[in-house]
Amino acid sequence: MKTYNFYAGPAILAEEVKKQAAQAALEYENTGLSLMEMSHRSAEVTAIMEEAVALTRELLNIPEGYRVLFLQGGASLQFYMTALNLLDSGKTAAYVDTGAWSKKAIKEAKRCGGVDVVASSSDKNYNYIPKNIDVPASAPYVHITTNNTIFGTQFQEIPDFDVPVVADMSSDIFSRPIDVSKYDVIYAGAQKNMGPAGATLVIVREGALGKVTRELPSMLDYRLFIEKNSLFNTGPVFSIYVSLLTLRWIKKNGGVEGMVNRNTEKANLLYEAIDNHPLFYGTAAKEDRSKMNVCFLLHEPSRSDEFLSACADAGIVGVKGHRSVGGFRASIYNAMDLAGVRQLVKVMESFQ
Amino acid sequence: MKTYNFYAGPAILAEEVKKQAAQAALEYENTGLSLMEMSHRSAEVTAIMEEAVALTRELLNIPEGYRVLFLQGGASLQFYMTALNLLDSGKTAAYVDTGAWSKKAIKEAKRCGGVDVVASSSDKNYNYIPKNIDVPASAPYVHITTNNTIFGTQFQEIPDFDVPVVADMSSDIFSRPIDVSKYDVIYAGAQKNMGPAGATLVIVREGALGKVTRELPSMLDYRLFIEKNSLFNTGPVFSIYVSLLTLRWIKKNGGVEGMVNRNTEKANLLYEAIDNHPLFYGTAAKEDRSKMNVCFLLHEPSRSDEFLSACADAGIVGVKGHRSVGGFRASIYNAMDLAGVRQLVKVMESFQ
Repeated sequence: MKTYNFYAGPAILAEEVKKQAAQAALEYENTGLSLMEMSHRSAEVTAIMEEAVALTRELLNIPEGYRVLFLQGGASLQFYMTALNLLDSGKTAAYVDTGAWSKKAIKEAKRCGGVDVVASSSDKNYNYIPKNIDVPASAPYVHITTNNTIFGTQFQEIPDFDVPVVADMSSDIFSRPIDVSKYDVIYAGAQKNMGPAGATLVIVREGALGKVTRELPSMLDYRLFIEKNSLFNTGPVFSIYVSLLTLRWIKKNGGVEGMVNRNTEKANLLYEAIDNHPLFYGTAAKEDRSKMNVCFLLHEPSRSDEFLSACADAGIVGVKGHRSVGGFRASIYNAMDLAGVRQLVKVMESFQ
Repeated sequence: MKTYNFYAGPAILAEEVKKQAAQAALEYENTGLSLMEMSHRSAEVTAIMEEAVALTRELLNIPEGYRVLFLQGGASLQFYMTALNLLDSGKTAAYVDTGAWSKKAIKEAKRCGGVDVVASSSDKNYNYIPKNIDVPASAPYVHITTNNTIFGTQFQEIPDFDVPVVADMSSDIFSRPIDVSKYDVIYAGAQKNMGPAGATLVIVREGALGKVTRELPSMLDYRLFIEKNSLFNTGPVFSIYVSLLTLRWIKKNGGVEGMVNRNTEKANLLYEAIDNHPLFYGTAAKEDRSKMNVCFLLHEPSRSDEFLSACADAGIVGVKGHRSVGGFRASIYNAMDLAGVRQLVKVMESFQ
């Protein structure tokens, strides 16, 4: 039986990506070596790094003046690293609080300087995205979480702020076109929409760096990784390679334009099934619904296990909701195809 | 033609480890999913994490009071993290300088507190390990690099210091038995002797923590990772799994006792070939020679390319020396078998 992967992260990878990754784990391109046992300074790994950067630039249409890095530590390390590099101790940055990950970003930023939480949706358990957000012109940046994996909300449009944006795009990077010129830093753990855990994508505007007065530890200084093309130290080569395979797959499938069309079709199908079903209801405000993570509940929560069991019978895994929301969460990242969503919808429709 | 992998890191993996890793990249244990696309909170990944910790404890005979963590960032992040967690700003730690990696550790520690370089072999381009090292009793710890990948030297015995030891064992972890009770922290990037790049092993004495007065960023606080069994955030699951496969392979092959026997035999064979050869000579002091990285030069350096070309013809890769030493470096980690060393010796013997 086919398994349909709705995990929130680490999450689904395209079939061809898995096959190519398995081949590279065994032997990379007739070198007689696994990619995992090749020097990060070898010609082969250098070519992988260069293509991953070039393809990221191409797919996201990244303008001059920005650098693309592949680091370690996930978004959790970036919560601290972005603030350490951009927020001087005398300054106050603006943060938008749209859920658990925003809160963690705020916590780490406070270690570096002032934090002004300019908007929050905590009053309704983060089931919406704040609107008309007012950001002081004095803020060095405003930080947002573009998609909220746990609560199933997403900025449909990025507001026009008067200051540069720092964005955690861990769960919707490469899912739609973005205007990179609005941002000072975009960061994303690979393991939701781009590859396996272990690699972290960072897109940084060079002009934003070097303005804080503090001394930076080497491993937390973007400038050193820029200088060494991400390889200040040994990078997570295999995770970067699988990310590259995914980027190639995205390009082959129409780029981020292709992805947003596919993602919109999948999300519409699933939300429609929820809205039309007598037993289920969605948790996020309709206008803020995520195209990546679809959260829904049963009017009768006591039947939750019954539904999860019906899902399991149909080969569906990973739909148990996060404890902060309960119920169910279907993560339908880029690599999830329409057939997978149809399978879930079929199980929902049979559930009466 | 078989390829013989002498890369210094990322480095050779056992054949069966590569096969099992490739299988997991494609599909993990009949789950219908690649291991790379499974939640880090899934039952399967939880079992992997638990076995990796248990096997590390077993192989290294780790006593009570110590915790085993699998983190990201490599030894380079540990240079800073160990000092941040153990070295208060008013204190001075002792550091032994045995090469490039020691120097980097010293540089990052200075950001946290005082550093007393109690011994150094920089006077002879790090070709020996300092002896009779005097460490002030006031030092919270003494930091050593047990094996120096670049210079081919290794502490044959760990001296009996009067203070706890913090050790970078990136390139000789699991290569021989160690007495963990001497250490406050042992850390090792996986990619030399334990697995692929992306995972970092940390063994830490719990009693050594919580003594610094500074506030610690979440991602740099050992205590948070201890509390969450390494998964404070999403860990580098696949790299940890391949490390686990390697640990199983070590156990099957006699544990660290089996490894030290095998490593001694390989190193003796290679050093003997160097010492007996009219054209080659070793760079490290004989009593301090590393059993992991064997550095050697030609008396006539102009013939270096000729030797590298003979190696390539015999399927040998990764023996070009680091620029700090020049010549050749054969890295013969645990997973290198005697046949690989024999192949290199054969090429040397034919080179006249």
